[in-house]
Amino acid sequence: MRKGETMQTTKTINLKSRPVGKPTMSDFEFATSEVPKLKDGEVLLSTRYVSVDPYLRGRMSDAPSYIEPFQIGKPMASGIIAEVIESNHDDFKAGDFVSGMMPWKETQVLKTDGLIKVDPDKAPLSAYLGILGMTGLTAYFGLTDIGKPKKGETLLVSGAAGAVGSVVGQIGKILGLRVVGIAGSDEKIEMLTSDFGFDAGINYNTTDNMVKAIGQACPDGVDVYFDNVGGEISDAVLFNINKFSRTINCGAIAVYNNTEAPKGISPQPFLVKNSASMQGFIIFDYVDRHAEGIRQLAEWLQQDKLKYTETIREGFDSIPQAFLDLFKGKNKGKMVVKV
Amino acid sequence: MRKGETMQTTKTINLKSRPVGKPTMSDFEFATSEVPKLKDGEVLLSTRYVSVDPYLRGRMSDAPSYIEPFQIGKPMASGIIAEVIESNHDDFKAGDFVSGMMPWKETQVLKTDGLIKVDPDKAPLSAYLGILGMTGLTAYFGLTDIGKPKKGETLLVSGAAGAVGSVVGQIGKILGLRVVGIAGSDEKIEMLTSDFGFDAGINYNTTDNMVKAIGQACPDGVDVYFDNVGGEISDAVLFNINKFSRTINCGAIAVYNNTEAPKGISPQPFLVKNSASMQGFIIFDYVDRHAEGIRQLAEWLQQDKLKYTETIREGFDSIPQAFLDLFKGKNKGKMVVKV
Repeated sequence: MRKGETMQTTKTINLKSRPVGKPTMSDFEFATSEVPKLKDGEVLLSTRYVSVDPYLRGRMSDAPSYIEPFQIGKPMASGIIAEVIESNHDDFKAGDFVSGMMPWKETQVLKTDGLIKVDPDKAPLSAYLGILGMTGLTAYFGLTDIGKPKKGETLLVSGAAGAVGSVVGQIGKILGLRVVGIAGSDEKIEMLTSDFGFDAGINYNTTDNMVKAIGQACPDGVDVYFDNVGGEISDAVLFNINKFSRTINCGAIAVYNNTEAPKGISPQPFLVKNSASMQGFIIFDYVDRHAEGIRQLAEWLQQDKLKYTETIREGFDSIPQAFLDLFKGKNKGKMVVKV
Repeated sequence: MRKGETMQTTKTINLKSRPVGKPTMSDFEFATSEVPKLKDGEVLLSTRYVSVDPYLRGRMSDAPSYIEPFQIGKPMASGIIAEVIESNHDDFKAGDFVSGMMPWKETQVLKTDGLIKVDPDKAPLSAYLGILGMTGLTAYFGLTDIGKPKKGETLLVSGAAGAVGSVVGQIGKILGLRVVGIAGSDEKIEMLTSDFGFDAGINYNTTDNMVKAIGQACPDGVDVYFDNVGGEISDAVLFNINKFSRTINCGAIAVYNNTEAPKGISPQPFLVKNSASMQGFIIFDYVDRHAEGIRQLAEWLQQDKLKYTETIREGFDSIPQAFLDLFKGKNKGKMVVKV
């Protein structure tokens, strides 16, 4: 324990205001806060990698949601990989790396509940925020548990070049599906088919008629639709679903910034006609099965069956911009900030 | 077999034109057709009760659907209870009553495939078109298999005074749920609470703010939503669903007559936020389990746990008008025509 010294301070990034519609830089506040002294059972952590994710937009509002909103004037938080600098807990020692949901601070003292040790020799540290973290688990449980795909079926993925989408497609290929991805540039489509083994891709920015384009890319119809985007793209999918199709509602980035409940084509008649389902989920629903998921994903990773792409930004101060850039589709794969 | 006599004729009701939007009387054609002579294995049937159902609207269009469309100039068809007049099949004899999907003809010769004998001593003949037929089975499998209700949960039913809805609510009460029904008149709401044991009802025709009204009638939120209507009512439900809620998409009568894909509030963000599901189905999906369903429903009926309401119209010629009146909500419970 440090004695008598001046209190240590740390950079922090707070929520300054609740965004109306699209978040902007002015919704964030760079601040300094004190790092308290280490008590029993606590660890002093230095932030190494910070995950930025579309779902954080929800926590910036105070509408009721599945996790509590961020507080104005208090730090934002997300998945972080940190190095243990000093430890008052027997299970952790200086030099260990841990993963957990932590406030956006460069340095902080935390209790160890909810911190998981990660091994930098088994995979790069940033992978524990992505393919072996929430991203990979979201893809794995959404596709396998809700999508219940059967070999030979057609899987359509929206936001396919995003962090979750690119993993979903690869798991689809491992499971023997025909996999089609929707993304927003020819470069991304090229990445899906060349790097990630997707069978086909649709660039929604250069396609006039998405209903027709999906029909052409999925000539046997869509059996499983992993939906990361919502909005007009998902409306177009409805016209192409098969009898007994399953839609996994993982995200709706297309409408997260809407100030009113978004409108579109009502799926109900399509669901009735096709005995089809739509089901939302968040990865916290599967907290009891995370170990199982990480095991399976790590196995595929070691067998070279899974690849992943990261967009790594540098510097603690670039966290807000990295987050904002998610809504412009500026990331390829998982967006993380290296501190 | 009848020899040498003049060929017998029968009244029949054909599809004259495919409706655009709401069907009208001009889409139907009253005609006469010949009744062929009885061949081996066939029965001569006299129609007694004819079921009219909202889903028939779908078969009047030629859009792809779960069952083939009716043909222009050919008879409409639906669930019918008929009396065997003459039989060339060992399992059937004159005086037997049968249930099946049959063309709208007063008299007809049919093969016996798909015909089920029904017992007029166990229940009134019309019940086999309703509570012990497609109606009851739809309510039973939709609620129990898709809705997976747990004792103490809140069940909301739209189209609650309709044939399926009133049975859904009663099964909900048998299973220990709080049951709230939505219908279009105070008289119907009174019937739901007084006759069918619903805990509360909402008259959507006299309610300004459905979102609020549902919230008040379901103070613990909606766990299971049995959706017979779609449209704006179902949009309002989205704001009141609980975490892990299940919506059973049974029908969308509010939008069946739309000429374009109906628009409304996009449910995707609500499903993501609540890890909630929506699932469509048709009763034909459960064809392997019909016997199980009929057994359970008959048991509840004999124990006086299930009541049903019928609206019975009289006369073969009134079938089209009875069908059209479904879309005006003129029926209470199952609409059948007695011939």
